[in-house]
Amino acid sequence: MRSHTDYMTFETDERRAFVRITEDVQRAVDESGVSEGMVLVSAMHITAGVWVNDDEPGIQADALEWLDKLAPPSWREPSNEVARQLLPEGGDYRHHRGGEDNGDAHLKNLLTHQQVVLPITDGRLDLGPWQAVFYCEFDGRRPKRLVIKVIGD
Amino acid sequence: MRSHTDYMTFETDERRAFVRITEDVQRAVDESGVSEGMVLVSAMHITAGVWVNDDEPGIQADALEWLDKLAPPSWREPSNEVARQLLPEGGDYRHHRGGEDNGDAHLKNLLTHQQVVLPITDGRLDLGPWQAVFYCEFDGRRPKRLVIKVIGD
Amino acid sequence: MRSHTDYMTFETDERRAFVRITEDVQRAVDESGVSEGMVLVSAMHITAGVWVNDDEPGIQADALEWLDKLAPPSWREPSNEVARQLLPEGGDYRHHRGGEDNGDAHLKNLLTHQQVVLPITDGRLDLGPWQAVFYCEFDGRRPKRLVIKVIGD
Repeated sequence: MRSHTDYMTFETDERRAFVRITEDVQRAVDESGVSEGMVLVSAMHITAGVWVNDDEPGIQADALEWLDKLAPPSWREPSNEVARQLLPEGGDYRHHRGGEDNGDAHLKNLLTHQQVVLPITDGRLDLGPWQAVFYCEFDGRRPKRLVIKVIGD
Repeated sequence: MRSHTDYMTFETDERRAFVRITEDVQRAVDESGVSEGMVLVSAMHITAGVWVNDDEPGIQADALEWLDKLAPPSWREPSNEVARQLLPEGGDYRHHRGGEDNGDAHLKNLLTHQQVVLPITDGRLDLGPWQAVFYCEFDGRRPKRLVIKVIGD
Repeated sequence: MRSHTDYMTFETDERRAFVRITEDVQRAVDESGVSEGMVLVSAMHITAGVWVNDDEPGIQADALEWLDKLAPPSWREPSNEVARQLLPEGGDYRHHRGGEDNGDAHLKNLLTHQQVVLPITDGRLDLGPWQAVFYCEFDGRRPKRLVIKVIGD
C-alpha cells in the first residue's frame, strides 16, 4: 500500500471564503503514485470545512448568505428574524465568554462537515463533471491548515 | 491491497427521492473480494447525497418536509415563514440567474453530505441493526451517477 | 495492508450528550500497528453522530441548544417560533406513529453526520491543535455502539 501526506495553509483576506483546491488535491494524488485508492481532504481547524460543489459564484454567495441565517454570527445584526431566533438565548454564544467571537463558525463547521473522501481511479480523482473541491473558511484572516492523505496502490 | 470500483445510475420519477442501496453496496463489496477494509459511497452530482438511516417511510417523509424548510425550493410557495426567510433576499437564488432552478438541491447536498464511508468486516458491511444506506436525490428526473469504491484486503 | 476493528458502547445518563473519544481512537490506532493510513469512526445507530470540534463546554452547550431549534424534539414545547415551525405540519413527526419519540434525533444525525475519517501519520491521529473527537448522543439512556476501523501500513 502506498501513502502520501500533504498539507496546505490558507490565510484568506476575508473572514469567510470558498477556495477551490481540486487541482491541489489532484497534485497530491499525482505525487503519491497511487492509481487506485482514496484521498481524504480534511480541515485541521474547527471553524472551517470542505465542500464538493459546483464552481459557480452564485451558489457560493447563496450558500454563504444561507449559512449566515442558519448559523448566525453574533458580531453583527442578524439578517432577519430566523437568524435572530437561531442565536442562543440572550443573543450571544456561550463560547464567547472566553473572548472568542467565532461561535457561528463552529456551527458552520458542523453543517458543512470538515472533510470529504474522494475516490481515485486510474490515478485521477473520480469526480462527476461539476464536482469541484472547496476549502470553506468561516473564520479566516489567520493561517489555517488542511491535510490531504492519499492511500492506495 | 485490493480495490474495486462500481457506478450506479439513478433516474427517479420524482424530483426528490430516497433510494435504498444497501444491497447494491454489499454486492460491490462481494465483487471486490475484500474482507477487511472500507467502502466509499459517494454521489457524483452536487444536487444529491447519501444518508445512512432507518428504512422507515415516516422518517423519509419527515426528512423531506424538513429539508424543504431548511433549504427551501424557490419554484413553489414557501411552506411557512421560516422557509420564506431562509430563501435568499429577493426570494430567488443567485444560482438561478443562469437558468437553473435547483439552488435548494445544492444546499440540501451540503446538509446531507454527498457521501458515507462504511467499514467492511469479514466481507460484510459492518452496520448497526437499523442502518440502511440511501441515495438521496434532490433534483431527479434525469440520469445521475454514484460511485462505490472498495479498498482493503 | 493492516486493519483493525474496535467497537465502543455508550450508555449515557442524559438523553443527549457529547462524549470525548479522541484517546480511545488513538488507542485503536496504537493496537492496529498502523503508522500511515486512515481511521473511520462511525456511529452504528441512526440517532447519534460523530463530530470533531473544540473540547470547550460552551461550544457543546451552544451546539445542543441550536440543534434543538433546527431539529426540534416534539416531546417538549418548542423553544421558540423557529423551532415550532421546523416541526412537521401538525406538530409531530410521522416517525412517531410507530410509538417512537426520537424523530428529532434522526434529523440531528443528518445534520451532524454519523462519522469522520481521520488521517494517521507516524502512528498518530493527524489532527489540528484544537481538534477533539466526540461521540454525539441524541437519544441515549440505552446501549449504543460505535465502530472504529483502522486501515493502513
